[in-house]
Amino acid sequence: MLIVPEREIADLMTREAAFAAVEKVFAAMAAGDAYNFPVVREAIGHEDALYGFKGGFDRSGLTLGLKAGGYWPNNLEKRGIINHQSTVFLFDPDTGKARAMVGGNLLTALRTAAASSVSIRHLAREDARVIGMVGAGHQATFQLRAALEQRDFDKVIGWNLHPEMLPNLEKVAAEAGVPFEAVELTGMREADVIISITSSFDAILMAEHVSPGCHIACMGTDTKGKQEVSPALLAKATVFTDEVAQSVSIGEAQHAVAQGLIDESAITQLGAVINGAHPGRRSAEEITLFDGTGVGLQDLAVAAAVVDLAVEKGIAIEVDF
Amino acid sequence: MLIVPEREIADLMTREAAFAAVEKVFAAMAAGDAYNFPVVREAIGHEDALYGFKGGFDRSGLTLGLKAGGYWPNNLEKRGIINHQSTVFLFDPDTGKARAMVGGNLLTALRTAAASSVSIRHLAREDARVIGMVGAGHQATFQLRAALEQRDFDKVIGWNLHPEMLPNLEKVAAEAGVPFEAVELTGMREADVIISITSSFDAILMAEHVSPGCHIACMGTDTKGKQEVSPALLAKATVFTDEVAQSVSIGEAQHAVAQGLIDESAITQLGAVINGAHPGRRSAEEITLFDGTGVGLQDLAVAAAVVDLAVEKGIAIEVDF
Repeated sequence: MLIVPEREIADLMTREAAFAAVEKVFAAMAAGDAYNFPVVREAIGHEDALYGFKGGFDRSGLTLGLKAGGYWPNNLEKRGIINHQSTVFLFDPDTGKARAMVGGNLLTALRTAAASSVSIRHLAREDARVIGMVGAGHQATFQLRAALEQRDFDKVIGWNLHPEMLPNLEKVAAEAGVPFEAVELTGMREADVIISITSSFDAILMAEHVSPGCHIACMGTDTKGKQEVSPALLAKATVFTDEVAQSVSIGEAQHAVAQGLIDESAITQLGAVINGAHPGRRSAEEITLFDGTGVGLQDLAVAAAVVDLAVEKGIAIEVDF
Repeated sequence: MLIVPEREIADLMTREAAFAAVEKVFAAMAAGDAYNFPVVREAIGHEDALYGFKGGFDRSGLTLGLKAGGYWPNNLEKRGIINHQSTVFLFDPDTGKARAMVGGNLLTALRTAAASSVSIRHLAREDARVIGMVGAGHQATFQLRAALEQRDFDKVIGWNLHPEMLPNLEKVAAEAGVPFEAVELTGMREADVIISITSSFDAILMAEHVSPGCHIACMGTDTKGKQEVSPALLAKATVFTDEVAQSVSIGEAQHAVAQGLIDESAITQLGAVINGAHPGRRSAEEITLFDGTGVGLQDLAVAAAVVDLAVEKGIAIEVDF
């Protein structure tokens, strides 16, 4: 039984390794070699916490297990620890024995950022130069940092409901040597790639804010009722997702599907593009949209990668369990 | 983060502690202070394994977490390890952080045996003297050992599809100084308490095999399609269970409910008897039946108890996670 504590993850896990793990498991999902289990998500009636389990099995990578944890909204104020708390548990698929336990907090941010990056790699125009950020919180910095590695971006533009948070984005852009500009939503028309990463319950980005040829990664909507972009924009775009069942129920596509603007059958797994089963972007004018809902297999994939790295570097704690 | 490996459980956990933990959490469930989450159970398509998660939260005991694991049918033959493999993970309900990891194999046997024992304590006649066992496998020995402590039994009778396994029961009876007799199913009419613990998919115990005043604990049926007793017997009995929703869907009551012989509303949580909200047995002639389906809260309760014992004895492994 191997243990990789949360404090070790930052030094072990690279964006490249997270990207590779997520890209591979998306491909396995589309090939039918990996699947996610039903998600358990409970408001437990204590500390206003949301707690649950996201599990899955990747037959090709032999990765089995779950991420357990959730959202404790009072953590930061009451205890000075982050509100999102999660732990990944890996099992040996040959025996059912517990194999590893891995801190899941930083991994969650990395795997979410990796998902939008994988979508940019496979769906954005090669000549994309301007990246737009809708949202400027902690998660947005991870998203932007990873996305900047996918194309030769020469400008970052950003919008946030609370503009005083925009320096978060500016700082990441500066680290990458790319200029940053705060814009109104209409300014997003300049963007070749847009990442939305908010906790909004109403559409922020409208069809008129987006130019032809743009790739949009909607990363904030993971619950019934949440929404970042207008259903009309979704209907105009070619829609890809990590998991179709989640996309239409808890993802960004839930609204356009409910309104009958798009059909579930029109939504493609991103893994099919990675596998070459779907051509992906078909023209320089097409708007592509990735609905990133977040699946347990992403967590398992990055956790398995980090366990391998920890073993390699002699950092994993071994417990005779 | 505390770790209690499987090998330590046998020396730490007593039947008394398991009984107390299960009785308390059944009471909490009936009082609305504890609830089980939806069960995830997946045939993963590898090694013929069944894998899943049983989680829950006990607000009164502040126990939050899950049991993960399942059934690997090739383990014993291929690898010399037991087929049922599980691990319990406890979380701090105040913060969402992982609190403890506990070997779940022996605990599962102890918590299942504790459940039928709790039902015997609260539902069997005080003057019960003969206990009947239907089933003689590994689990049956745990059941019998625990049950013998609940009344002044002076005889054990047993039936098994494969009679060559009956010495398993005889050995436990001998340890307790009680004579054992192998019987036909009709011989079960002598029993004041019957425990059925098989993996049968057809009714074994019929109404005519059971005398008035008997208490029956059906402990084997935990899946759609499984069955140990006839629906007619269930219809004749006053039915109690750990969790009504499981009883009517995957428990012994599934068949009688499907056939319209009993209604879900007639099934009582055992915890209500423990709490005094239901009188339990009403007469010396009444047949009482406990449908033990097995809930995640039982696993969490015994795991929490064993962590306390391990800390007390200085055996818990502490990992800075």
